[in-house]
Amino acid sequence: MTLLDGKYIASQIRNELREQVAAIVASGRRAPKLGIVIVGHNPASETYVANKLKACADVGINAEKIAFEDTITEADLLREVAKLNADNSIDGYIVQLPLPAHINEQTILSAIDYRKDVDGLTPENVGRTVQGLPSIVSATPRGISELLSRYHIPTEGKHVVVIGRSNIVGKPMAMLLMQRPYLSLPKLSAAAVGNATVTICHSKTTDLKSICLTADIIIVAAGCPGLLTADMVREGVTVIDVGITRVEDANAPKGYRLVGDVDFASVAPKCAFITPVPGGVGPMTIVSLLQNTLQAYLQ
Amino acid sequence: MTLLDGKYIASQIRNELREQVAAIVASGRRAPKLGIVIVGHNPASETYVANKLKACADVGINAEKIAFEDTITEADLLREVAKLNADNSIDGYIVQLPLPAHINEQTILSAIDYRKDVDGLTPENVGRTVQGLPSIVSATPRGISELLSRYHIPTEGKHVVVIGRSNIVGKPMAMLLMQRPYLSLPKLSAAAVGNATVTICHSKTTDLKSICLTADIIIVAAGCPGLLTADMVREGVTVIDVGITRVEDANAPKGYRLVGDVDFASVAPKCAFITPVPGGVGPMTIVSLLQNTLQAYLQ
Repeated sequence: MTLLDGKYIASQIRNELREQVAAIVASGRRAPKLGIVIVGHNPASETYVANKLKACADVGINAEKIAFEDTITEADLLREVAKLNADNSIDGYIVQLPLPAHINEQTILSAIDYRKDVDGLTPENVGRTVQGLPSIVSATPRGISELLSRYHIPTEGKHVVVIGRSNIVGKPMAMLLMQRPYLSLPKLSAAAVGNATVTICHSKTTDLKSICLTADIIIVAAGCPGLLTADMVREGVTVIDVGITRVEDANAPKGYRLVGDVDFASVAPKCAFITPVPGGVGPMTIVSLLQNTLQAYLQ
Repeated sequence: MTLLDGKYIASQIRNELREQVAAIVASGRRAPKLGIVIVGHNPASETYVANKLKACADVGINAEKIAFEDTITEADLLREVAKLNADNSIDGYIVQLPLPAHINEQTILSAIDYRKDVDGLTPENVGRTVQGLPSIVSATPRGISELLSRYHIPTEGKHVVVIGRSNIVGKPMAMLLMQRPYLSLPKLSAAAVGNATVTICHSKTTDLKSICLTADIIIVAAGCPGLLTADMVREGVTVIDVGITRVEDANAPKGYRLVGDVDFASVAPKCAFITPVPGGVGPMTIVSLLQNTLQAYLQ
């Protein structure tokens, strides 16, 4: 059994990005720049934004926090989005969610120019991914693609079971895996998944166990701790665990532990490859945002 | 075994559309209007366009053929598309494919306002379908959804195997089937598929037979005559055959027969429901275009 070390792969990608950005700057061009829109003062959002700013600085990508009070109207925020679409000094930007209740998130997201949509959440980008056109892929599916391809885990002709049908993980992941490869992910990425036979399972699936027992690769993004157990997988399977849930634990230093959707202790011994939680998929997501920003800059 | 009679269901839907349009006109509003853009004089395209014009007239939808010579430049065609986007007298329009080689089809399709994209082929519409937002669904997946729901064939919790990953059938069909229902298709439609466990198979699938043997519903859109044979399906399955290929036949009146992707003679006896070819999915596609035009009018 081999652990898929997301922490290591993410640091490897950061090194590559640092070199790529340095080469760009050395050639006399400006560095890529990411905009991060945040509305209000949600403490979790503030932390996420701070981490993203730090990650950009670490590889030499410029980043600007664009903060608004939570009294901003939807119309005014739409105007700010239009400004960012037109701003040639910003290659890509994200709108940190959640937004205040009086602002329709979908309305804001849909207004982002897909070429600057480095979170890959606009319908235009999602549709382009589905149609096999060049697109920006959202962070988690992109990160998982990198993990699979950097560990040389082939997907062609394999049966991949995706558990969960969220807009940010399950659906785009399934679409990437079933495509002809190289279509959606840009050349600058090492990630080349595709040509898999894909089954998408979810809360209405009635025979999850028997389907999982036919899988070569299982990607679990259901948000249900311990959903995947040893009796549901066959020997030699590859398991990607996207779940990350806080579980109270009086013995843990912080009073909680992070657990995935996989019953790691029982499943891991049967696996060829498996991601740990934490340290598997998690570290890949911020690095995907950096890759997407460079992609938006280069396109 | 029950035949899914697309010819009958299509005529039923035309009757409903005729009544809905008549009620709109009787209330003093104008009738819906479809634009059909055609470039050049491809004989097959001319026939398709003539059939669409006739189908519109039959239910009271206004339709306008907007014809250009094949010398039109891409830039000029883009300007015509922009005009149609802005024209309030046109509720929806289609661009008949193929376009001449000097015009990039994707560039033209992507320029269509998704609210008028009654072929459902723009990335924006596809992405909206994937994300469960209100969208216009392309003709064949919409027609299949109508067939399934009007024959009261439940999809929730069922295992549906889709064979083929084309942008116009396989991928959007898979997306509709895995969604929570009612999200993408409008209330005015009777079609309510969704909540299915979906497997997407294609030319790189290695174990098609064993996957098909676990299916409750099989939708074949591979363009390979006779691909699905009796040994690949279990008793009680529902089979939707999207394939339609001309096979030479000296004994047939026209010198050819139309055959589907299913070996009908051997598969049909095992089925609960099956579509014939012709007369199954085929007749549903033009009627879907009419439904989409009314949807674009009403939204």
